[in-house]
Amino acid sequence: MNAVARLIRPRSVAVIGASADPNKTSGRPVSFLQKHGFAGAIYPVNPKVERIGELTCYRDIEALPCVPDVGIVLLAAERAHLAVRELARKGAAAAIVLAAGYTETGEEGALRQKVLLEAAGSMRILGPNTIGLVNLTDNIVLSASGALAMDHFPAGSIGLVSQSGGILGALLSRAAARGIGLSKLVSTSNEADLDLSDFIEFLAADEATKVIALYVEAIRHPGRFREAVRKARETGKPVVAFKIGRSEAGAKAAVSHTGALAGSDRMYDALFRQVGVIRAKTFEELLDIPAALAAGRKLGGRRVAILTSTGGAGTIVSDSLGVAGFETPAPDAKTAARLAALQSGSHANFDRNPVDLTLAGLHPDILRGAIRALLASPSYDALVVIAGSSAVGSPALLADAVHDCLHESDKPVIAYVSPHAPDVGAVLTARGVPAYTSAESCASAFSGLLQASRSARGEVASLLERQVDIADLPEGSLDEAEAKALFARFGIPGVSERIVQTPNEAASAAAELGGKVVLKILSGEITHKSEVGGVAVNLTPDTIGERLIAMANDVEKATGQRPQRFLVQEMVAGGTELILGMHRDALGTAVLLGMGGVTAELFKDTTMRLLPPMGGLSREEALAMLHDLITWPLLDGFRGRPKLDVEALESAIVAFSLMTAQLGERLIEAEINPVFVLPAGQGVRAADGVVMLGAAGRT
Amino acid sequence: MNAVARLIRPRSVAVIGASADPNKTSGRPVSFLQKHGFAGAIYPVNPKVERIGELTCYRDIEALPCVPDVGIVLLAAERAHLAVRELARKGAAAAIVLAAGYTETGEEGALRQKVLLEAAGSMRILGPNTIGLVNLTDNIVLSASGALAMDHFPAGSIGLVSQSGGILGALLSRAAARGIGLSKLVSTSNEADLDLSDFIEFLAADEATKVIALYVEAIRHPGRFREAVRKARETGKPVVAFKIGRSEAGAKAAVSHTGALAGSDRMYDALFRQVGVIRAKTFEELLDIPAALAAGRKLGGRRVAILTSTGGAGTIVSDSLGVAGFETPAPDAKTAARLAALQSGSHANFDRNPVDLTLAGLHPDILRGAIRALLASPSYDALVVIAGSSAVGSPALLADAVHDCLHESDKPVIAYVSPHAPDVGAVLTARGVPAYTSAESCASAFSGLLQASRSARGEVASLLERQVDIADLPEGSLDEAEAKALFARFGIPGVSERIVQTPNEAASAAAELGGKVVLKILSGEITHKSEVGGVAVNLTPDTIGERLIAMANDVEKATGQRPQRFLVQEMVAGGTELILGMHRDALGTAVLLGMGGVTAELFKDTTMRLLPPMGGLSREEALAMLHDLITWPLLDGFRGRPKLDVEALESAIVAFSLMTAQLGERLIEAEINPVFVLPAGQGVRAADGVVMLGAAGRT
Repeated sequence: MNAVARLIRPRSVAVIGASADPNKTSGRPVSFLQKHGFAGAIYPVNPKVERIGELTCYRDIEALPCVPDVGIVLLAAERAHLAVRELARKGAAAAIVLAAGYTETGEEGALRQKVLLEAAGSMRILGPNTIGLVNLTDNIVLSASGALAMDHFPAGSIGLVSQSGGILGALLSRAAARGIGLSKLVSTSNEADLDLSDFIEFLAADEATKVIALYVEAIRHPGRFREAVRKARETGKPVVAFKIGRSEAGAKAAVSHTGALAGSDRMYDALFRQVGVIRAKTFEELLDIPAALAAGRKLGGRRVAILTSTGGAGTIVSDSLGVAGFETPAPDAKTAARLAALQSGSHANFDRNPVDLTLAGLHPDILRGAIRALLASPSYDALVVIAGSSAVGSPALLADAVHDCLHESDKPVIAYVSPHAPDVGAVLTARGVPAYTSAESCASAFSGLLQASRSARGEVASLLERQVDIADLPEGSLDEAEAKALFARFGIPGVSERIVQTPNEAASAAAELGGKVVLKILSGEITHKSEVGGVAVNLTPDTIGERLIAMANDVEKATGQRPQRFLVQEMVAGGTELILGMHRDALGTAVLLGMGGVTAELFKDTTMRLLPPMGGLSREEALAMLHDLITWPLLDGFRGRPKLDVEALESAIVAFSLMTAQLGERLIEAEINPVFVLPAGQGVRAADGVVMLGAAGRT
Repeated sequence: MNAVARLIRPRSVAVIGASADPNKTSGRPVSFLQKHGFAGAIYPVNPKVERIGELTCYRDIEALPCVPDVGIVLLAAERAHLAVRELARKGAAAAIVLAAGYTETGEEGALRQKVLLEAAGSMRILGPNTIGLVNLTDNIVLSASGALAMDHFPAGSIGLVSQSGGILGALLSRAAARGIGLSKLVSTSNEADLDLSDFIEFLAADEATKVIALYVEAIRHPGRFREAVRKARETGKPVVAFKIGRSEAGAKAAVSHTGALAGSDRMYDALFRQVGVIRAKTFEELLDIPAALAAGRKLGGRRVAILTSTGGAGTIVSDSLGVAGFETPAPDAKTAARLAALQSGSHANFDRNPVDLTLAGLHPDILRGAIRALLASPSYDALVVIAGSSAVGSPALLADAVHDCLHESDKPVIAYVSPHAPDVGAVLTARGVPAYTSAESCASAFSGLLQASRSARGEVASLLERQVDIADLPEGSLDEAEAKALFARFGIPGVSERIVQTPNEAASAAAELGGKVVLKILSGEITHKSEVGGVAVNLTPDTIGERLIAMANDVEKATGQRPQRFLVQEMVAGGTELILGMHRDALGTAVLLGMGGVTAELFKDTTMRLLPPMGGLSREEALAMLHDLITWPLLDGFRGRPKLDVEALESAIVAFSLMTAQLGERLIEAEINPVFVLPAGQGVRAADGVVMLGAAGRT
């Protein structure tokens, strides 16, 4: 057994600083271990106490009769490292350090955490600042949280890892009240050593776990996270994550809370999508979606049947499903006839969905008949059953009826509980019909199922066939011509252009290029050329010379510097402008694609993809980025416009990503803005760009 | 007392078809009346029964000893109208008809409903297909719903009207479980007679009611609804509505459920916004927002303090508030010092928000001190207190502490309950601190408070100074020139143009207009001119003649009709395109404004306003429409573009709305697409348009 397995399924536990008073925080771990029937050895350690109930209390760790698998350290931050050192010396697999006062409090705390880690040596640490862990499969509670005082937790198949301690109690009590069974609960908190990924890996291999749920504040080791999620997905276990920090306010709160450096939320979005993690949009969804996944059924499409005995609730569910993009088609003729046959002579109509049984829904046979008919219907991919007020008096009626029919179909079945009736929901969930009290949660559950049913695209990297020679690249900002030359080296063509210094040179360049041309100043320092009067369009060989002199004057007036060099460029017509750039933060490096132009800018129509660990983006991923854009139809022949050269644009995205990958840390900034996409067959042209390079040693 | 007041506060109730068995549906009304202590007279009517408990049961309505205020009719649809006729004859104020089988089931049912209404004469009807009503203020239950079997409902100040019956039980039980007090609950259902607006008016005058909450499927009488809401708002009572039918699926379900004709959801959105109804976006918000409003505090801004003893929950709340546009600034120095003084020697930092008291939050004095400091701080407009796992053991601790401090401030205070702890939430809510179990609900509560705090803009109509002469208008489709002439009559200038028939006329018209011109076919039938080759741009007097002949050929080929007349128009440059149109459905007539151009079209950047009962839109409303557009900055000098003539555009919107108002039902369709907005001072130009007119008598 490795250390994490010994931590989660220990045969023996030492509790350092245990109190004999079970009402004190320090009295809880021993009390909880006993209460929930821990079968292994418990070694309380406290020099001031001789016995805790039946148990011998030891003077110090040295005095323990055996090597404990785990030590729960209840001492304050000032002394916790001493116990950790002793546990490591004794040979324990792991220590759980509950004390606060480490990185989350500032510099002094960070130092304390460093000392703690050194004291552990090769022993693993959970925490500090953790609430501990609960192994529900084996009834082992390694925690001091008052939230765990409850007598019984429903064990199940959802493994939950949280980077916040307080949240653990909230999730456990909320899950228990809803009849949602968990397998393991771990709070990693400060992650001085063991982190999210260690436990994802453990849960990926854990037989009792079918679904993995994560409460994420910040992923400290993105590479390990990708790898752990990959393992989980390979074993067929969906991973659901709620990530705090969607707003700036939340991000700040999360950082100050655990002291972790968070990446931008959009980067998390990209990462989750790329590795196939289902993102819970709200805290509620972190139970809603795993509860649906734990039932183990796959959702094959978007067509949902709703069975109700109360009209209003059916409407609410139908409406929310519609808002979330699901369909609630009316029953096909055969199904309608089957439904009608169940109750002859009623006012009810069975040509509509929700299927409203009205009071007949209280009759178990009719209920079962309707459930069977809807599950068998080829018109539906899933079923929502609704528990109305009548269910309050007989919580098992609906649950029994659904349960009787479940084995006849592999379609997902969930329940919506309309009145306040927690028992009804818990019974339904416990019998394999995940129940929800909000219609939005029903929609979330189905959305989660749909995402899990999709096979992961996987991260196919595009690898550079041969390394591009970059030995000669300078350090610092490149000017526009140099930047485009760099893009061209990697295979992204630029507009035709000439560097000129005088009006005469400009005129001959314009004549050589033909048609209308653009004139720009060429400078590595001035990046916002238009704002200082450094760009002019629609020029001809006749007009460009005069314009060059005027431009030089304008720019000198605006910046105090007289420009010496200019670019004369062909004017691109008939294309659409995009922006291609990069973004780097704690999570990694991403390629960013956005529609250009002032209107698209107002709508912030952009998308991003993180670079895979090795190489750049695949063509498939590049095309997926294009499809992400709301303005994608502008490239695809919308309203009679010509189809543009999407293949060339894919190539440009892949090339840009490969450039970003090969240059690595050395590339501080890179953006092509705009890149023109021309009609199909005519390619793309980088029309302007910015590149900033660090020193050569940084790659 | 009017009929509605007698219905809600009856002194005597007849129950037609009452059963002696309180477990039967027909036994419930008498049983519920007695159980909740109805002080008036109860008259069961049933020829087959002599006594129901202590009560005499009457053979028929005729035999009743007095005139009942209300009759509850428990008979099936086939016989209910007979009882209704008898009740009317006897002089009852109103009948509550519970039976289903009316308009909601189809044509036959609609006929039955007509008969029912005729039987009532001047007596009022609630229903049919209703679950009845509950007057919680006076403990009067007029319903047969099993959901009302509960022993106690917390009475309070939220008056609730629902167009669905089943929902009533869900709302009542959910509210009771959360400690949210209601004043009156009414299910209007089919609304054969009394509708939503009757009860809004009643609640507007009802002393026990402070907030009005509505569950809306379809507003059948928009004029009366506007008027009723106006009365409620005049008495300072906010109105919150959850409207079903946000998705097409839901709209269909709602229509088939009550048989009402629903308007489009965007029209409801416009109506609610215009009359100052706060729209609940989810069913949960229909309790969440009124619960916050019932506390009677006004929210003055967006800065929220969060007080917690558990880090994770504070982060979740802070994050959700951030997503919803609220701010959670750190405490000012003075407040931070006050907080720090409460617990010297702790690791905690008080320079951040959420303010995390950690375990010290269990100490009532520290808790009260922190609440006081945050309520007194000028940095905050509101406070969220968080109940963590520790609250489970002592549900009143936090509630008492907050309650002690509430009177010192008029800022809103709400609570977030992190673990499953329904008692904690109910105690908090009952003590004036609305409690929520989801962070999104906290954000919704504040958003609702903010909307209620804003004074309603009121519906200022713009009135036509003098009626435009429209006596000469024809019936049917106008051609483009006629349409623009109509817009011009109402004060919206069009582009300069000439009608021509021959190449020569076209050439002289182009010369006369000067510059580049546009050539279009002119036809009342062909509305999609570009699609048949009927539009050409950038023409000069030299090229237009030849182009006219080519166009005539193209259009003839495409449509089989050779166009006889053409428009030559000035080409407008340097402006921005918008679309100005109208939409009419069951809710009324609205003016629709959208940004033109292909990119904006992909983002569906449009907004609408319903016309007020008298007249058109005010300039203020027209400007508000412009501000609704995400692309508004394009008109306002975004990224160095010129500021456009917003004043002229406002005038055009007002003019268009006045035209729509004056033409009334006669205007079947009208759209200006595009209208060009030119730089400031240069006005707007209608460049193309469509008008369809009905017969003159329809106004």
